[in-house]
This record gives sequence, C-alpha cells and structure tokens, in this order.
Amino acid sequence: MRTAILGATGLVGRTMLKLLESRAWADDEPLLLCSSRSAGQELRFRGRPLRCQDAEAADLKGVQLALCSAGAAASRRHAPRLRDAGAWVVDNSSAFRLDADVPLVVPEVNPALVAGRCGAAAGRGGIIANPNCSTIQLAVALAPLLRSFGLREVHVTTLQAVSGAGQKGLDELARQTADPEARCEVFARPIAANVVPEIGAAMPDGSFEEEAKVGRELRKIFELTRLAVTCTATRVPVACGHAAAVRVLTERPAPVAAARVAMAAWPGLEVAPGAHEYRTPLEIAGDAGVHVGRLRGEPGRGDVLLFWVVADNLLKGAAWNALQIADLLVGTPEGR
Amino acid sequence: MRTAILGATGLVGRTMLKLLESRAWADDEPLLLCSSRSAGQELRFRGRPLRCQDAEAADLKGVQLALCSAGAAASRRHAPRLRDAGAWVVDNSSAFRLDADVPLVVPEVNPALVAGRCGAAAGRGGIIANPNCSTIQLAVALAPLLRSFGLREVHVTTLQAVSGAGQKGLDELARQTADPEARCEVFARPIAANVVPEIGAAMPDGSFEEEAKVGRELRKIFELTRLAVTCTATRVPVACGHAAAVRVLTERPAPVAAARVAMAAWPGLEVAPGAHEYRTPLEIAGDAGVHVGRLRGEPGRGDVLLFWVVADNLLKGAAWNALQIADLLVGTPEGR
Repeated sequence: MRTAILGATGLVGRTMLKLLESRAWADDEPLLLCSSRSAGQELRFRGRPLRCQDAEAADLKGVQLALCSAGAAASRRHAPRLRDAGAWVVDNSSAFRLDADVPLVVPEVNPALVAGRCGAAAGRGGIIANPNCSTIQLAVALAPLLRSFGLREVHVTTLQAVSGAGQKGLDELARQTADPEARCEVFARPIAANVVPEIGAAMPDGSFEEEAKVGRELRKIFELTRLAVTCTATRVPVACGHAAAVRVLTERPAPVAAARVAMAAWPGLEVAPGAHEYRTPLEIAGDAGVHVGRLRGEPGRGDVLLFWVVADNLLKGAAWNALQIADLLVGTPEGR
Repeated sequence: MRTAILGATGLVGRTMLKLLESRAWADDEPLLLCSSRSAGQELRFRGRPLRCQDAEAADLKGVQLALCSAGAAASRRHAPRLRDAGAWVVDNSSAFRLDADVPLVVPEVNPALVAGRCGAAAGRGGIIANPNCSTIQLAVALAPLLRSFGLREVHVTTLQAVSGAGQKGLDELARQTADPEARCEVFARPIAANVVPEIGAAMPDGSFEEEAKVGRELRKIFELTRLAVTCTATRVPVACGHAAAVRVLTERPAPVAAARVAMAAWPGLEVAPGAHEYRTPLEIAGDAGVHVGRLRGEPGRGDVLLFWVVADNLLKGAAWNALQIADLLVGTPEGR
C-alpha cells in the first residue's frame, strides 16, 4: 500500500515512520511530507534513505493511507488534499477531532468506527482523528469502567511530559536545565525544576485548551454528551510519559476488586495488582501500553474509584494509536 | 526568651534558625539541639557561631519556647522532655498532630487555640503541632471557602518538591540528575525526570501516609469530622515549592467571583485575578505566602470550585508556620 507521513521530520512523525517499518501493508518508499523549511531532509526507512518533500509541492496521487502529525494548521491544509486524492488519513492534530463526520478513535474503545474501511472502499478516502495524548490513555483506562459500572463524572489532574510539545519541548527543558535563565519559547513558564499548570490556549470557561480537549474528546469517544469532566493539565519536567491522577464517579456501585478485574481484562491496559503499586513515566517510556496503578476506592463511598494512569505520550498517546487505527483501516490481523 | 531548636542542622531547622534571628522575643543564644551524630556542628545566629548539642545530653532547663523539626521519633522522645522542663513546644513532626489535647494550628485559620498561652502561663509548658506541609497551604486556601460557603468535599492532587524530604531529598534529585542510574535511597523510584505517586508509608485504605495526613489534618483543623477528602500525593523533580490541584464541593452555592473576593481578603493568601493566572513553585520559592491561581468553576455546577495552590514547603509549609505559632504563643504583634 502506498503510504505517506505528513510531519515526518517531527518527533511524532519520526516515531510513526519507525513503527511503520514493521507493517506488512506499508510499501518500501512511503511519501515523507514536511514543510518547505524541512524539505530535502533525509530519513531512513527499512535501512534505506528517503528524502522528505514539501507537502505543498509533492504529488499525492496514489497515496492510500496517510498518517499526519504536523499540527492543526498543516492538517487543515493537507488532510483534505490527501483524502481527495483517495487516501485514508489518520490525523493526529486537533483539527478534525470534533467534526461530526470524523470518527475519533481509540482502537481499544471504538474500533468498529473504522474497521476495514480502507480495504472495503477502494479509491475513496476519508479522515479519522487520533485523540489528544492525555485523552487516549484516559479513554483506555475508563472504557472498562464505563462498560461495567457506567460513568457519571471524571476528574483528572494530568502531569504531562515536555515531549508532548515535540522536539522543541525537549530542547527547552534541556536548555533551561543547563541555564535556568534561558528564555521561555515553548512553555508559558520555566519548566526545568518546575511544574506549570498551563497547556494550550486560554478558553472562555477558565480552562486551558488541553483541559477542554480532555472533556470534549472523552464525551465524543464514549458517546456520552453529558459526561461531567474536569481537568487540570500540568506540564512537568519529564522527557517522555504522561501521568494522570483520576477520580471517577460511577453510575452503579463499583467495588475495587471488580474494577480491577474489568480493567485487567481490557485490551491494551495493564493494571497493577495492589492499591500501592504503580508505574512511573520513566519506567514505561518506550512501552505501547496504558498502565493503571494506585487503584483504590474512597472511604465511605461505593461509587468512586481513584487511580493513577501512565502511558508513553509519543507511542500510545500519538504514533502508536495512529498506527493501530491504520491497522484497523487496512484490516490486517495486527489491528484486530 | 530562652529558645531552643530541635533538629537545628536539618533543612527546616536551619530555616527556623534563620527566621528566628528577626524575632525580638528570641534570646541571642538559642539552644541548638541535634542528634549525637551532628553534635558539635557550628551554625551562625545573628552573626555569631553557636555549637549544636546532643539533645540527649543537653540541659533543657530554662527553655521557654522550642521549635522541633527532627522527625517523629525524635519529637516523641524530646518534645515531652522540653514541655516538662517548662517549654512551649511547636512541633513540626507528625508525632502529636492527632492527639486530642494537642492543638494543630495554622495561624491564619485557628489562631485562638494558642494565642498568648506562653506568656499567660509562665512556667507551664505544652505542645502545639505544626501540620503537614501540604495540609498547611490547603488549610489557608480552603478556610475562606469554608467560612463563606461551607465545605462538603475536597479532592486534591499534590505535586510536591523533593525538599519535603529534607536535604537528603535535594541530594537524591541532584545525584540522579547527574547520573540517572544512581540508587534510590530517599524516594521510592528515581525522581529526576520523573514523577512518583508515593509519599510516606502504605496505609490499609490504599493511600500512602501523606495522602491520609492531608485528610485527617484538614478535618482536625476545620473541626469537620465528616469532611470528605481524597488526595493523590505525588513527588515531582522540583527543589522547593509544593503545588496542588484542588476541586472543592461547597455546602452552599459558591460563585467564582465571590470565592475570589473571600480568598483575596484572607490573611496570608494571595489570589491571582483571573482563571488563567497562577504562580509556579519556582516563582514563589522563598516567599512565605500561600498563592492561589487558576480559580474557576465547573460548567453546569454552582457548588464546585477548582483551583491551583502553591507555597514554599520549607517556609509556610514548615518553618514559617511554626514561627507564626511561636509569635502567637508569645503574644507579640508579629503574630497578631
């Protein structure tokens, strides 16, 4: 299959390219698309060098499957072009996530929205949205609780790695670690030896955009238009791996033991066996799974669960989820 | 007044000693008490060197006011000895915090429990407990909300600095920053470039001790035996300054504007003027106040407030709160 990656030179784009190497359905020369600024850069794929091309100038004809991670503006420009050229587009930006006709997909949660569509409708393309990095790991952790107990409210504090802001986020942390006076270009405040409760643009309701995304994307994925979600999203001086502390109110009584069984049985989810056990970002970096720990109840209540969830924001939070969607679209065994 | 500091060589003890220099009621030669291991160390006070003495061997006679920060075991041993020698003891450990006859004091919240007692009852000592570092800043931030709207539930995720574990916590972060393979001696997991949701011993209810402390200490300070509190306490690679993301359910409707007014008028509390404004640990290190930001409501509810609170854990979270209690005990204007 003729594949393309938009944003190939970025941190997530490079991760997508690396993961694509193992996919039997991917051709040996994926079309690597980038900005005019990065055009001409060489990246390796299956041991051979490939040159990145300016997305504006490149010939998109024949592309059947495209993975996009170049930011919302680039996706708004190029995802429709790829689709109109006949490609199925898995878009990692926020550009189309809330569009009514664009599925927002976490393969462990709502795979039926995309399964086999690429193979079944040859010659016709479409856009599938990859959710926000924090949303994805929350959706996987919450899905078995929704299934078993129903969800009434979800309250989240995230602790997010700097790589969520791409290579420039990693660079800023490194720069400010070396020189605490180094100017803030990526984050709102110095991030080395600090924590910053601001991710994304300021929203009218008092939240920042990342916080709003978590709520509206969870509501769309779970098809629960009235699910109450609050989120405080913080950036922490961690290179890779988003963590979140979560408190969930369920519709029906949710005994901790039953919740643990339901979560442990869910695909893509690992659950620590005890309330005091957990994984940390440093431990799970490079791992594609979602890791729940610290699962416990709230004294005096039978309808509350608290847990800690960690996942690699570049893998499950971005490139791996996108590749899983691609597997589903193509209808390969890997995606089933 | 004859004063003493137990744990004078520690991070909090040194901060107490520094703050004590400005107190007109403190004599020029406070008795510096420490473990036998640290005995003989010299510390400076008002420009002159003072030698630390082994607390086991030192003569406690005549001490009128003692500040203790040497851990629960040392406090259990020496605080009663100091009290029996006639001293008022402000103890920063968890040893006596829940004792029914020991006041647990945050001067901006419940000053009447201690005001003037040292001066009024000359010759008779007593023990006053300083709350946990995270509890103190939460208590100051929540007190005006309790007064104005009543408190029903408090849900907290903390992001706590390594200096909460003393100098050895700072050392471990520095060691692991230089060498990511350096062994964990203080924290449960590597703390450099990581976040760790474990502070204190494992408790039977699934919490760790720091989380349990926040609940039971807030209930005692506010005299609300049934206040529902949940907490996930995390350690972050920050040197100084604890932060917390808080969600509060109030008894009565709590409009954000009214909450902001009530909080801004509260002593010791600074409130950022907008929902998108906040302080970070790095910015407030060295500042004695409690800083609330990100104050906002929850869409669709009138009885929920969300906010972000930051304070210097060595100052307001420990030494400064203890010194404020001492001021109150002595009855000086500084403490009023």
